[in-house]
This record gives sequence, structure tokens and C-alpha cells, in this order.
Amino acid sequence: MSITRLQKLIIEKRNPTVAGLDARPEYVPQHIIAENVEKYGRTLKAAAESVYMFNVGLIDALAELVPAVKPQSAYYELLGPDGVAVLKRTIDYAKSKGLYVIVDAKRNDIGATATAYAEAYLGMVEFDGVTLSAFDADALTVNPYLGSDGIKPFTKYCDEKAIFVLAKTSNKSSIELQDMLAGDRPLYKVVASRIERWGADYVGEYGYSNVGAVVGATYPEELTELRKTCPRTFFLVPGYGAQGGTAADIEGAFDKEGRGAIINSSRGIMCAWQKKEDDGTHFAECAYEAALKMKRELNAYILPM
Amino acid sequence: MSITRLQKLIIEKRNPTVAGLDARPEYVPQHIIAENVEKYGRTLKAAAESVYMFNVGLIDALAELVPAVKPQSAYYELLGPDGVAVLKRTIDYAKSKGLYVIVDAKRNDIGATATAYAEAYLGMVEFDGVTLSAFDADALTVNPYLGSDGIKPFTKYCDEKAIFVLAKTSNKSSIELQDMLAGDRPLYKVVASRIERWGADYVGEYGYSNVGAVVGATYPEELTELRKTCPRTFFLVPGYGAQGGTAADIEGAFDKEGRGAIINSSRGIMCAWQKKEDDGTHFAECAYEAALKMKRELNAYILPM
Repeated sequence: MSITRLQKLIIEKRNPTVAGLDARPEYVPQHIIAENVEKYGRTLKAAAESVYMFNVGLIDALAELVPAVKPQSAYYELLGPDGVAVLKRTIDYAKSKGLYVIVDAKRNDIGATATAYAEAYLGMVEFDGVTLSAFDADALTVNPYLGSDGIKPFTKYCDEKAIFVLAKTSNKSSIELQDMLAGDRPLYKVVASRIERWGADYVGEYGYSNVGAVVGATYPEELTELRKTCPRTFFLVPGYGAQGGTAADIEGAFDKEGRGAIINSSRGIMCAWQKKEDDGTHFAECAYEAALKMKRELNAYILPM
Repeated sequence: MSITRLQKLIIEKRNPTVAGLDARPEYVPQHIIAENVEKYGRTLKAAAESVYMFNVGLIDALAELVPAVKPQSAYYELLGPDGVAVLKRTIDYAKSKGLYVIVDAKRNDIGATATAYAEAYLGMVEFDGVTLSAFDADALTVNPYLGSDGIKPFTKYCDEKAIFVLAKTSNKSSIELQDMLAGDRPLYKVVASRIERWGADYVGEYGYSNVGAVVGATYPEELTELRKTCPRTFFLVPGYGAQGGTAADIEGAFDKEGRGAIINSSRGIMCAWQKKEDDGTHFAECAYEAALKMKRELNAYILPM
């Protein structure tokens, strides 16, 4: 069970943090860029290889401290096919270090096309009599706007893998559609209750299902309320740190045993070196320190048991 | 102006059809698969190269007949990084043949991340003092669930490029969220009226903007009504053919001058050979015939002027 494995890693490391791997080339220290430009010229290949070296440094530094990483697909697609190749290598490298890998791609489509996305990120693909794997992540974020026949092709893989469906996102304008009143409830609550239902057949040993929800740290009241109304839905919580969410804000995401959520930090960890030094020689140590500080902040509110 | 260029191509070819390039390996004739397995083994590389050869054949056959193609990103991601490399080469090849290229990827995220997607598909990326391009499509489909700060990073590119925002999708369960009553209107109408507003600054010479909407052929009444309430929003209409939409169903997508929409067919054109022959030797001719038949069907209802 995918979420159970994530929960065990959280308990083992006493740390409900997922570190974002969302590097634009600007976040990568110059010595890494220079090395790759030397090899590959000023190309997307050089940019992608730079991001990969940066990711490897971050993963090596964080592997003992955090249970999970979350590469954001947009930053890899930004660098074209070479970037997407680095996404795949990053997933593989993180898994080889025992990390749980959530690909944040917010994929969405219907029927056969949603099935292709599910096969790409969570499953396998059949080709000429053999079975191959494309990205093979542990979990994928999914957008619910197309309704349940856009979700079911993903839940088919939720015996082994997990998805996190967007419910209430961390951005300001999430209120525009997600808070729209549909009858007596805002839309995000309708979505959250569907997520709770979609997960019914995929509940693991701690009582949480492999169909999770994305709920932003920037909406602490909503987090607290959804924790109560969706008792088996595990939360992926973005918006901590750079976007303004604090440790106090995310307390409500957890149940009374300290379970039920994982908190993402991307720039706060990845770009910690930019606050400390000019050249990024010690980017990995800076990331480690930032992640350790975050772990302590979270543990002051919530100790994962 | 992006949509204006698309409209001129539609008028020139008297054909408001966009051909989907959504090939799973199963849709590719065996002689192409065999050639690539011979070269690359039973690998995702072989699958991806097979899809590319199939796409080149389809593009060559269709380039004089249709104004636009729509590769669906899911089917390229399905084949991993090699598949995504083939997406890029397919975009380039289609553009070299004068076709307008809509990447159907339904991307969505917030702020900096949405910007990365926009740069990846519509814009350019800065790297170490140079400007590079990742995918460089003419248009991209976008999911609106995150609200306007998930859309604005894309509209920044809408002076030159176009987006199509999901309003009412063609699938059955689109009713679950999209038809939910928000006040006195279903959600998709709220989204459609926002799309109409987002496009206000990007209107071209025929009166349509570079911020278009996706509205399914399977909902003819909704299409007809949205045509009236969103007079400057160009529609990308999926659901024709395989999903059940007919030429009569899409009549309402067009204004009285026969403008305002483009109709997608994917499997109906791409897989036409599977209805005619066993081995796919003439897949390109079969695709041409199917596309010609569709053009005639559409022209019986609507002649693009």
C-alpha cells in the first residue's frame, strides 16, 4: 500500500516533510551550470544536466532526513525533452535512495487519455508483447475538473500507487472556482467528499487511502475542517514557507495521532543557499539545514507517531 | 495573432477540422513497429520512433486538407522521455508543413509553476544568457480549476500564441463538477464567461480572441448557448465521431458566418486504416479519406468563410 509506505517513512524519520525538486536553471549554483555549459554549450541539454546534478546533491543531502520528494513536472518540461529525461532520472535516483516520489504534474483528461497518463506515471505500457515502464513514480497529482471518469483511470492503479487530487489549492485565486457555492457547500468540499469516496477501496493499515487530496497550507481553517470530514483522505499540503503557510497553520491537517498529512517545501529547502552564500558551493548543506529547521518547526506542533 | 492565423488556414482549406495525433503503439501499423523493433529492440525508443513515423505519414497525407493538428501529450508521455522527444519532433514537423499545432496537455498550476508551463509550450526559456525554446507550439489547452492566477501566466503569451481553456468537456461525467449550480448558473458557464473576459485584450481581425475554450461536441445545446454568450471566444470542439458527436451536433458552435470553432477528430482519422485493412499499408490514404469525408460532412452544415 502506497500511502502506508509513505506513512512508515514519515514515522521512521519523524518528519512529515516532502521536499520539492522544482529547479529552474536560476536556482542551480553557477559552478554546476558552468561545468555543463563547458560540456554541452548553452543548450537545454546543459540546463537539464545542471538540474540533474543539483537534484542529486539535494537528494544525497536529504535522503536520511525527509521521507519523500516531489519533482514538479513543469520545471522539467520547461527544458524540453532533455528536461523530461532528467525528470525520469531524478525519479529513479530518488527511489534508489529509498525516497517516496510524488510527481506533481496535475494531470487530467478523460477515458483512454487519462489511462495513458496513469500508465505513464503509475503503471506500465504494453508494446509489441513486452511490458515497459515510462516514469514509474509512487504517486501523481491529478486535477478533478473533468469529474469521476477523469479520476477512475488513475484509481485503477491505487492498489499499488497513490494519487493526490486537487481539492483546495494554496493560491489566492483558488477561491474563484473552488469556493463557489454549489448548493450549500463550496465546490472544494464537494470535491473533497468525492475524494473520500473514491478512496474507499484503497485504505491502508493506518486508515488512510491511496486517493489523497491536495489542500493548501494557506487555508488553515479549510484544512482543519477537511481533516474532520475526510477522515481517510491523506493530505498533500503545499504553500508552507515561501507561500506564507506556517507550522501553526498546518496543525489542523493532522489527526490526533499526528498522522494524515505531508507538508511540502520547495524553494525554502532547494534555494536555501541563495540566502546564505553567493556562489552555492554549499547548496546541499544549506538545503539540509533548512529541512532540519522545518522538521523541528513541524515537530513543535506535531510529532508523527 | 494566433487565432487569426488559424482562422485564415480554416478559410483557405474550407475545413474547420483539427486532426488529433494521439497514437498509442496499438494504432501504428505493424510494418512500422517491426522496422523500429528491428533497429531498437522492444523498447520505448522503438515505440516512440514508430509513433513518429506514423505521425509523419499522417501529417504528409493531411497537410493540404486540414488546417491544424492536435497532438495529445498523454500518448507521448506514455512512452517516457523518448516519447516526449517525439512530441517535440512532431510539433516541428507539423509546423514545417504549415500546420497550426495545438498541444493538448490540459496543463494547470499556479504562479511560477504555471509560468514554467507557459514558457515550455508557448514561450522561451532563459539559460545562462541565451534564450532557448522547449516545445514552441501555437496553442496549448489549459485547465481552469485553480482560478485566474493559474491562467494569467498563460495569457501573457497570448499576444502571439493561443490557449484553449476547458469549459465544458465532452465526457459524460463532466456534469459532476462542470454542471454544478453556482448561484443561478452551472459552473461551466461561470468559467466560460471568465474565458470571454480573459480574452478581451487579445482579439484578432475576425473578432475572436487568443483565449479560446474547449466545449464538447457531445453537448450541442451547451455549445449553441455558449456561442451566443461568448461571442469572441473561439471553440476547440472535441467529441466528434468516436465519442458520438455528429455534424448536426456541432452546427451551433459556429457563428452565422461559419466562424468561431474548430472540430477535433482523433481516432476517426488516425485509426481509419483499422476499419479498412488488416495491415495498415495504406494508413495514410485511409486517414486522408476519413478526413475528406469529415470535411464534407462539416461543410454540409457549415462552410467556413
